[in-house]
Amino acid sequence: MGSMMFNKVITKPLLSSLFILAALTTATPVTSFAQTAESGAETPRNMILVIGDGMGFPYLSAYRYFKDGRGMTDRADIEQTIFDQYLVGAASTYPADETLVTDSAAGATTLASGVKTYNGAIGVDPNREPVKSMMAYANERDMLTAAIATVQVTHATPAAFFTHSESRRLENDIADQFASLDDNGNWRFDLLLGGGEDFFVRPASDEHDAVDHLEHFRNNGMRVVTSFEELATQQRLPLIGLFAGRNLPNVIDDQTRLKNMTEQSLRLLNNADKPYVLMIEASMIDWCGHGNDIGCAMHEMAELDELLEFLIPYVEEQGDTALVVTADHSTGGLTLGADGAYQFRAAEVRRQGRALRSMATDLNDMPWIDWEGYIETHLPYPLSTDQQQAIVDVAEYQADDRRNKINDVLRDILNYHTRAGWTTSGHTGEDVPVIAAGPWADRFRGSQDHTDIANQFIEWIKAH
Amino acid sequence: MGSMMFNKVITKPLLSSLFILAALTTATPVTSFAQTAESGAETPRNMILVIGDGMGFPYLSAYRYFKDGRGMTDRADIEQTIFDQYLVGAASTYPADETLVTDSAAGATTLASGVKTYNGAIGVDPNREPVKSMMAYANERDMLTAAIATVQVTHATPAAFFTHSESRRLENDIADQFASLDDNGNWRFDLLLGGGEDFFVRPASDEHDAVDHLEHFRNNGMRVVTSFEELATQQRLPLIGLFAGRNLPNVIDDQTRLKNMTEQSLRLLNNADKPYVLMIEASMIDWCGHGNDIGCAMHEMAELDELLEFLIPYVEEQGDTALVVTADHSTGGLTLGADGAYQFRAAEVRRQGRALRSMATDLNDMPWIDWEGYIETHLPYPLSTDQQQAIVDVAEYQADDRRNKINDVLRDILNYHTRAGWTTSGHTGEDVPVIAAGPWADRFRGSQDHTDIANQFIEWIKAH
Repeated sequence: MGSMMFNKVITKPLLSSLFILAALTTATPVTSFAQTAESGAETPRNMILVIGDGMGFPYLSAYRYFKDGRGMTDRADIEQTIFDQYLVGAASTYPADETLVTDSAAGATTLASGVKTYNGAIGVDPNREPVKSMMAYANERDMLTAAIATVQVTHATPAAFFTHSESRRLENDIADQFASLDDNGNWRFDLLLGGGEDFFVRPASDEHDAVDHLEHFRNNGMRVVTSFEELATQQRLPLIGLFAGRNLPNVIDDQTRLKNMTEQSLRLLNNADKPYVLMIEASMIDWCGHGNDIGCAMHEMAELDELLEFLIPYVEEQGDTALVVTADHSTGGLTLGADGAYQFRAAEVRRQGRALRSMATDLNDMPWIDWEGYIETHLPYPLSTDQQQAIVDVAEYQADDRRNKINDVLRDILNYHTRAGWTTSGHTGEDVPVIAAGPWADRFRGSQDHTDIANQFIEWIKAH
Repeated sequence: MGSMMFNKVITKPLLSSLFILAALTTATPVTSFAQTAESGAETPRNMILVIGDGMGFPYLSAYRYFKDGRGMTDRADIEQTIFDQYLVGAASTYPADETLVTDSAAGATTLASGVKTYNGAIGVDPNREPVKSMMAYANERDMLTAAIATVQVTHATPAAFFTHSESRRLENDIADQFASLDDNGNWRFDLLLGGGEDFFVRPASDEHDAVDHLEHFRNNGMRVVTSFEELATQQRLPLIGLFAGRNLPNVIDDQTRLKNMTEQSLRLLNNADKPYVLMIEASMIDWCGHGNDIGCAMHEMAELDELLEFLIPYVEEQGDTALVVTADHSTGGLTLGADGAYQFRAAEVRRQGRALRSMATDLNDMPWIDWEGYIETHLPYPLSTDQQQAIVDVAEYQADDRRNKINDVLRDILNYHTRAGWTTSGHTGEDVPVIAAGPWADRFRGSQDHTDIANQFIEWIKAH
């Protein structure tokens, strides 16, 4: 089961050879760009910022061992991942308030604008005043602006690159802003892919008329797609693609999609033949972290690995594109080892078959007679008497929060058998990794603050 | 109280100006070394490896905020520490066994020799065969070998650089090896500073005669000192300095000492006028981590900060010395934030006045009437009704493990008020920071395995 689940994330690239071919035939030689980058005289034509939401350093270490799949008797050396190969430094992430621990809204606002703010803020500063994001700067310079997420595009990270709101919770308002023109009469984005149709198409309520921003987009020259098949047939921007009502499914329950969305985006951006700024969020590493769900998190990391295995060679071949991969914060307080055990059982993590909350939902709706087989399939660990009793107890539990109680029992079993440690259901304030590729990678070496990353991007955009 | 405790760790250097003066007058110009380092043609004359035992990435982030002392209303930007300024990369630390989480013995064996081994191993490989450490290579080439620790020198980290044992627990055997000559008839070290006199001077027992290795040292040309005052008067190597029966006290309870021991060591090594390999262990970061004691850990970090503020400028001025600072593993599963709170209260950490285990020991020996004032002094947080009740309960508790129970109550209070998160009383397997200074710092950029650090040192030594 475990290896079956894992196979899907190591499927070979479909389209990357096309892009590498295109790069080889059209790109300026890499060496000349590397030289000019070192001299500081040149700015990249295109910029790509990849955000692994919640991807603190422990996620990189855990993923290396998860990918290796080291069993109990295997002593071979462990291969570096592409995250390791291109690691250049670390970034601090503290917000402007007193907490020292950022949420995704403040973190994304800072990564988009270089301005620190309070937790919950979307594109506004501590005084609730709008801040100018790298996408707004790029728009002004006729660069293309694009974003990809695996949650709804109205969620904190993509929202903070294009919109302004005192609170991340106002996702309808954020959708309204995405559907409105900016002060210069332009669309706020050229390309936007992710989930979130529910926020763009809303039925009438007692307080509000019905809203259909997709209809509005279609009537005003914005292409709208709602499936990956449709996306593959598109040739022109601007375009919005919403592939789920809210978030896309977790990779562990479904399939990877970031590489496909990115390949399609690069095809469309290159067709348009203008410089671009692209933000890609591996959104759901964070959601798995909030759930203290190690297998869920590792499959999301595998999706990002698959993306970078395509994107980094692409950027290196292009020679005119800067790529930075970082995180907004770490989530869950993940550690490798817990409760006194000097062990992280990476091979056991690979045996997990579904996300904990998917399992909890399924079991909550399932007759007891089917529980044993379901758990044996998706959480195939030898259960102790106490663990078995906990399952019986929660099956008999009758209240509205039964699904959450089931989730807690499954989580404890998973963490016991894998020795994944967690300190919180929220975020933590440790520095996050910085990974970079392309001729400008050296600019991000060593320790920095997340404002430094944003400010470098904005400086480059201003030079266009 | 808090600020008073902190003042002692930011006391200005005493002797560093002397060394900088010496460096300025005698060192080859830095630029020429930097150029040869880049070309790969030169090896450093001297090498210094600093190991922050247990110092995972979260310790660096936490220490930055602890040093800053940010309060609840302070929104100023936070300054980088010297750890940040010289951060160059990260290192994986998995041992040769199946755990993926190393202990300090296996970690130190690998950092000393480049050979991965099983947890508990001191200078032996997975087959229990001795491995050759960088110190043994250096000895063969008539380089001076030196080590400094803040625990007993028979403890895992210093032991693994000079001795060989199937188990780290055999500290008497390890002392015996330190006191014996190597296969070439030489002392195994030229300079050894730390604690551990109890292992070198042992009374007679039913099974063994009395041992006095210090007497043996004195009778065979090795200088022996047991106080820092004596150390300051010494002019010649070889020398052993043992300043405590076992470990030195925690910094939070006493004073810093690493900088002083290092300054004295450099004076003696430079007097001897031969190339040297020096290992310095900030040993007790790890011990505080095992105790889930954030204030204790931060004061140990402050001691290492004080050392590096002296040592890095010294190395940069010398121009002929390579310096790497790393950790063997992370301890305690520290995270900044815990239990759903998006907060790390660094300013509260500064108010802690003593190590948790010191407080527990004191309280255990103290009449109840004195408890309130003691706790108010050393753990000055507003206590909830539940926390007050827990103190009353543990005061009334009567059993041999009362001290541990007191420790647990204090630890929970501390972690609640600081929001330090911990997943374990043991170690965790995340990658650790790599910090480097001097002309060869670039060799350690990016992600690497801890074997790579050891192998680079050994390669340099072999070129001597």
